[in-house]
Amino acid sequence: MFARLLAPRTTVSAHCDLPCGVYDPAQARIEAESVKAICEKYQSNEDPVFRTRALIIKEQRSELVKHHLWVLWTDYFKPPHFEKYPHLHQLFNEATKLAGAAGGKGTVDPAEAQKLLDKIAEIDTIFWETKKAA
Amino acid sequence: MFARLLAPRTTVSAHCDLPCGVYDPAQARIEAESVKAICEKYQSNEDPVFRTRALIIKEQRSELVKHHLWVLWTDYFKPPHFEKYPHLHQLFNEATKLAGAAGGKGTVDPAEAQKLLDKIAEIDTIFWETKKAA
Amino acid sequence: MFARLLAPRTTVSAHCDLPCGVYDPAQARIEAESVKAICEKYQSNEDPVFRTRALIIKEQRSELVKHHLWVLWTDYFKPPHFEKYPHLHQLFNEATKLAGAAGGKGTVDPAEAQKLLDKIAEIDTIFWETKKAA
Amino acid sequence: MFARLLAPRTTVSAHCDLPCGVYDPAQARIEAESVKAICEKYQSNEDPVFRTRALIIKEQRSELVKHHLWVLWTDYFKPPHFEKYPHLHQLFNEATKLAGAAGGKGTVDPAEAQKLLDKIAEIDTIFWETKKAA
Amino acid sequence: MFARLLAPRTTVSAHCDLPCGVYDPAQARIEAESVKAICEKYQSNEDPVFRTRALIIKEQRSELVKHHLWVLWTDYFKPPHFEKYPHLHQLFNEATKLAGAAGGKGTVDPAEAQKLLDKIAEIDTIFWETKKAA
Amino acid sequence: MFARLLAPRTTVSAHCDLPCGVYDPAQARIEAESVKAICEKYQSNEDPVFRTRALIIKEQRSELVKHHLWVLWTDYFKPPHFEKYPHLHQLFNEATKLAGAAGGKGTVDPAEAQKLLDKIAEIDTIFWETKKAA
Repeated sequence: MFARLLAPRTTVSAHCDLPCGVYDPAQARIEAESVKAICEKYQSNEDPVFRTRALIIKEQRSELVKHHLWVLWTDYFKPPHFEKYPHLHQLFNEATKLAGAAGGKGTVDPAEAQKLLDKIAEIDTIFWETKKAA
Repeated sequence: MFARLLAPRTTVSAHCDLPCGVYDPAQARIEAESVKAICEKYQSNEDPVFRTRALIIKEQRSELVKHHLWVLWTDYFKPPHFEKYPHLHQLFNEATKLAGAAGGKGTVDPAEAQKLLDKIAEIDTIFWETKKAA
Repeated sequence: MFARLLAPRTTVSAHCDLPCGVYDPAQARIEAESVKAICEKYQSNEDPVFRTRALIIKEQRSELVKHHLWVLWTDYFKPPHFEKYPHLHQLFNEATKLAGAAGGKGTVDPAEAQKLLDKIAEIDTIFWETKKAA
Repeated sequence: MFARLLAPRTTVSAHCDLPCGVYDPAQARIEAESVKAICEKYQSNEDPVFRTRALIIKEQRSELVKHHLWVLWTDYFKPPHFEKYPHLHQLFNEATKLAGAAGGKGTVDPAEAQKLLDKIAEIDTIFWETKKAA
Repeated sequence: MFARLLAPRTTVSAHCDLPCGVYDPAQARIEAESVKAICEKYQSNEDPVFRTRALIIKEQRSELVKHHLWVLWTDYFKPPHFEKYPHLHQLFNEATKLAGAAGGKGTVDPAEAQKLLDKIAEIDTIFWETKKAA
Repeated sequence: MFARLLAPRTTVSAHCDLPCGVYDPAQARIEAESVKAICEKYQSNEDPVFRTRALIIKEQRSELVKHHLWVLWTDYFKPPHFEKYPHLHQLFNEATKLAGAAGGKGTVDPAEAQKLLDKIAEIDTIFWETKKAA
C-alpha cells in the first residue's frame, strides 16, 4: 500500500477515442490476471457446471484483454514510438494472439496465461518509458 | 515507476462472477479519470462535432464506472465488511449516483467528475484495508 | 400489489439515466423467471449440448437480473426511501448476490432461482409502495 | 401475491433462445414508454447537453424495442399463429419500423412514440390471446 | 447470383438506422458460414474444452445472423417489396428461426447450418433483384 | 451457386476465435462504406437531431471497422505473412487509426472516410493474395 501512495493515481492517461488521453496497461493486466486465476480454478474443480462457467467467463475476459491491448496499439502509440521500439508491432501481435485461441481462450493451462501476463509486462514497461519521455 | 516495482502486480484480486477472485478499484478509477478528462476537453473546445462526441463517449465511460462499482459492491464485499463499515452501502450508492445523471453523465463540469473520483478514492481505501485484513 | 390492479400497465416510470422516469421491477423479474425456467429445463435434459447452452444463456440472464436491480437501487431509489426502508440496501445487496455466483449464475437448482424471485418480489412490493406515496 | 393471480398479464412466459419459454411484450413496452418520456423531456428542455444525451439514450432504447419485438416475432410466434393472424407479419414489420429511423429513433415527437406504443398494444393483445389458447 | 458478378462489391448500400443506405446480405452469410464451420469442427474434435468453446461461439455467431437478417427485414425492405414478394415475410421468419434454437444455436449438425445458408441465399437473390430494380 | 465459383472474393473463410476459419475483409469494408455514407448525409442535412444521430451512429460503425480490422490482424495473419509483407503491421496500424479519432470517428469529411476505404482495399488485396497462396 505504501508503494501506491508514492505512485500518484494521476499517472494514468487517454483510452477512449475522443481521445480523453487516459491510458493504462493495468486494464489489460487485470483481465489477464483473471484469465490466469480462472485457469487455476478450472484445474482444481471437476464439477461440470463450474468448468463450463469457467470457460464462458474466460472467453469474455480474454476478449477484454485483446480489446484493451488493441486500443493501446492503435490509439496510444504513435509513429515515433514505433520507430524507437521496432519490435513493438510484433510484441502487440504476439500478445493479442496469446489472448486468443492460441492461449487465453484456447487453453486452461495457467502457464499459458502467465506467458500472456509476461507479454503484457513487456508492453507495460515500454508504455511507462514513453510516458516518462513525454 | 520505482513505486510500481515495489508494488507487486499480484495485489489485484476477483472481478468476474466465477468468481476468479481478481478485483481492483483501479478499473472504476481509470474510467472516472476519463470522465473528468472529457469534461475538461469539452470545456476548452467549442466545435459542435467534438462536443457531441465528447457527450457520447462520456455516457459510455460513466456507465463503465457504475458497472465496475456495482461489481465491487455486490461481488467483492461480504456481510462482515458491511458490518465493519456501516456507511459502505451508502458510499457505493452515492458514488454510483455521482456517475449517473446527477454527475458523470449529466454534467460537463470537471469539478463534479472530481467528486466522483473522491468517492472512488474512499472506496479504494476501504477496499485495500479489507485486503490487508484478509 | 392491489395497487397494481388499479394502476394499469401504464404506471411504469424511468429506467435510463437521462433519467426518463420509467422504472419497473418487472424487467428484473422476467429475467429471473427465465433463470428459473432454465434451471428446470437443465434438470430434465441430459443432452450435453443442451446443458452447455443452458449454462451460457443462464449466465447472460442472471447478469441482466443484476443489471436491472442495480439500476433500481442507484437510479430509482433516493435518500428518503433508504431512510424509510432501512434494510433496503441490504435487500438489494442480497438480491444481486443471489443472481450471481452464489445463486442464479452458480447453481442449476430451481429452488435457488426461486429464492432470487422471492427477493425481487420483496423489492417489487417496496417499489410500488413508494410509487403510490409519490 | 394474490393480486398477481388476478392480473393475468403478469404471467410471464420464454424469451431467450434455449428456449426458456418466458416471453412478455412488457419488455418492449417498457422501453417504448421510455422512448416517449424522452421525447417529452426533450421538448421541454432546451439545454444542449441534455438534448444530446436524450438523443443518445433514445437511440439505445429504441434499439431495445426493436430487439424485444424481433425476439417475439421469431421465437415466440409459430406457423399456426401466423395462419390465425394473417396480418401479424405486417404488424411486427410496421412496429419495428416505427421504432427505427421512421419513428422512435428518427423523431423527437411524443405523438410518433405513442404510435409505436399503440402498435405494441396490438401485438400485446394477440400475444395474450395465443397464451390463453395454448 | 449472376447479377453479383456484374454488380461489383461497391454496390453495397444502408444497414444502420440513420439510415446510411448501406445494406448487404453478406453480413448474415459470413456469420452463417462461421456457424457451419463451427459445427464441422465440433464434429471432428472431441476435446471437451474445444467443444464447450465451440458452443459458446456458435451461440454468438447465430445471434449475429439473426440480427443482420432482422435489420434487412425491418430497415431495408419496404411495403412495395413485400407486395412484389408475398412470401418474403415468411422467408425471413423461417430464416431467423433456423438461426435460433431450431437450427444454428440448437444443433451441431452442419446440414442444419447449410439449410440456414440456403435460406440466406434465397434472401440474397431477392435483395439483389430489388437493388437492380431501384 | 456456379457464379460464386467465378467470383472468388465471396469465398468467405474464419473470423471468430475458435477459430472457425471464416474471415472476410468485407466486414470492415461494409462498415466503412457506412461511415462514408453517414459523412455525406451529415454534410447535406442541417437538422440538429439528424446530425447528432449521425454522429452517434458513425461512432459505432467506426468502432466496428476497428474491431473487424483488429481481428484480421491478430487472428488471420500469421508470422509468415508478416515476413512476406513487411509493411503489413504499419498498414493495419494506420487503417485502425484512420477509423478512430483521426478519421472515421473524429471527422465528418467524406474524403477522410474514403482514405479509410482505400487502406481497407490495400488490406483486402493482400488478404486475397494470401488466400490464393494457401
